[in-house]
Amino acid sequence: MADVVETKLREYLKKKALKPGSPLPKELELAEALGVSRNVVREALSRLRMLGMIETRKKRGMILAEPDVLKAFERVLDPLILDKQTLQDLFELRLVLEMGLADILYRRMTEEDLKELESIVDKETGKVRTPFKVKNEIAFHGKLYQMTGNTTFLRFQSMLLPIFEYVVDLRKKDGILSGKVTHRDLLEILKTGTPEDFRQGMKEHLKPHFERLNR
Amino acid sequence: MADVVETKLREYLKKKALKPGSPLPKELELAEALGVSRNVVREALSRLRMLGMIETRKKRGMILAEPDVLKAFERVLDPLILDKQTLQDLFELRLVLEMGLADILYRRMTEEDLKELESIVDKETGKVRTPFKVKNEIAFHGKLYQMTGNTTFLRFQSMLLPIFEYVVDLRKKDGILSGKVTHRDLLEILKTGTPEDFRQGMKEHLKPHFERLNR
Repeated sequence: MADVVETKLREYLKKKALKPGSPLPKELELAEALGVSRNVVREALSRLRMLGMIETRKKRGMILAEPDVLKAFERVLDPLILDKQTLQDLFELRLVLEMGLADILYRRMTEEDLKELESIVDKETGKVRTPFKVKNEIAFHGKLYQMTGNTTFLRFQSMLLPIFEYVVDLRKKDGILSGKVTHRDLLEILKTGTPEDFRQGMKEHLKPHFERLNR
Repeated sequence: MADVVETKLREYLKKKALKPGSPLPKELELAEALGVSRNVVREALSRLRMLGMIETRKKRGMILAEPDVLKAFERVLDPLILDKQTLQDLFELRLVLEMGLADILYRRMTEEDLKELESIVDKETGKVRTPFKVKNEIAFHGKLYQMTGNTTFLRFQSMLLPIFEYVVDLRKKDGILSGKVTHRDLLEILKTGTPEDFRQGMKEHLKPHFERLNR
């Protein structure tokens, strides 16, 4: 029932051709237009508000908002309630993203970005094989996403972090750390190499993860 | 207010350590535990149901479900209501995924998969430069996602299709078709080449899109 009313409400709003920022009709008016009770309309409105499609503004009442594609996604990404297969799928998504972002990264990264990345790498201790620390991983890989200039990627990455930590725990059990190519090596590739070099480096860096994938 | 109660409810359910399949406490019990009215609890439950975290089963009442990470995401992915920047971000996400999936693809694809992909390519007309058809694009690229064995990717791809069509329209305006490497070339690479060859081929195939990216 709630699903049906939600769909009706969406269609009604679309037909009215409301743009982001437009005020919404009053609850009573919507209830009449959809032929349902105010309580039912309120529930449907609540769902759209939850998805970020509707906002309530002081003095202006409800308006149609710019929807936030990741807001709803964020709410279900809780490793405590996700099944193992989904966690695995999402972890693979992260591997795929990191292998695939080279071209956009090279296109958009700035000198400033490289300096920041360098200072992140400098903060990591050790010279050859840095001891594995989640904090370092997040700082380094998060910066890479940010350097793509794509805010959706960046937010996606921060949502995938709980998943990441779940897999890091697994890694500790297996005793597997990262591959031969370190964060510093990747930084050097970004400074002087090509997107192809970077992909090869990243593949080497993520190797223990790729080896753990089932066939 | 609704947000606060939703968060409280989530915490309450977590503290109770319910597993997927467990029955939920009754509305009245939840209202008392959270110190709010039944109406407010009902709204919070409706939100969780919408995210696929709760299901209602005949005779058993509400149970905690295996949440569906993509269900909520799907509901906001409507190109008519997304702003241009988000559409662009999502389109870039698709480019990144296609560049990044080579390793998982090679690990999991089967002889059967290659045969199916071949029959998809055979159905496309033309020999050197196939005329650009959304239907062909969807069939070929969708099959690649499916071959990764990762159902989350596959569903993601089908959700990104509206975005894809939006960009295809743009391409028509620009008069840009696909790169020199065709679907058939990519198939040949899958049969005899390495993941690196595939990435190079895919980059060539997607070249017009990469060239359109801003810096």
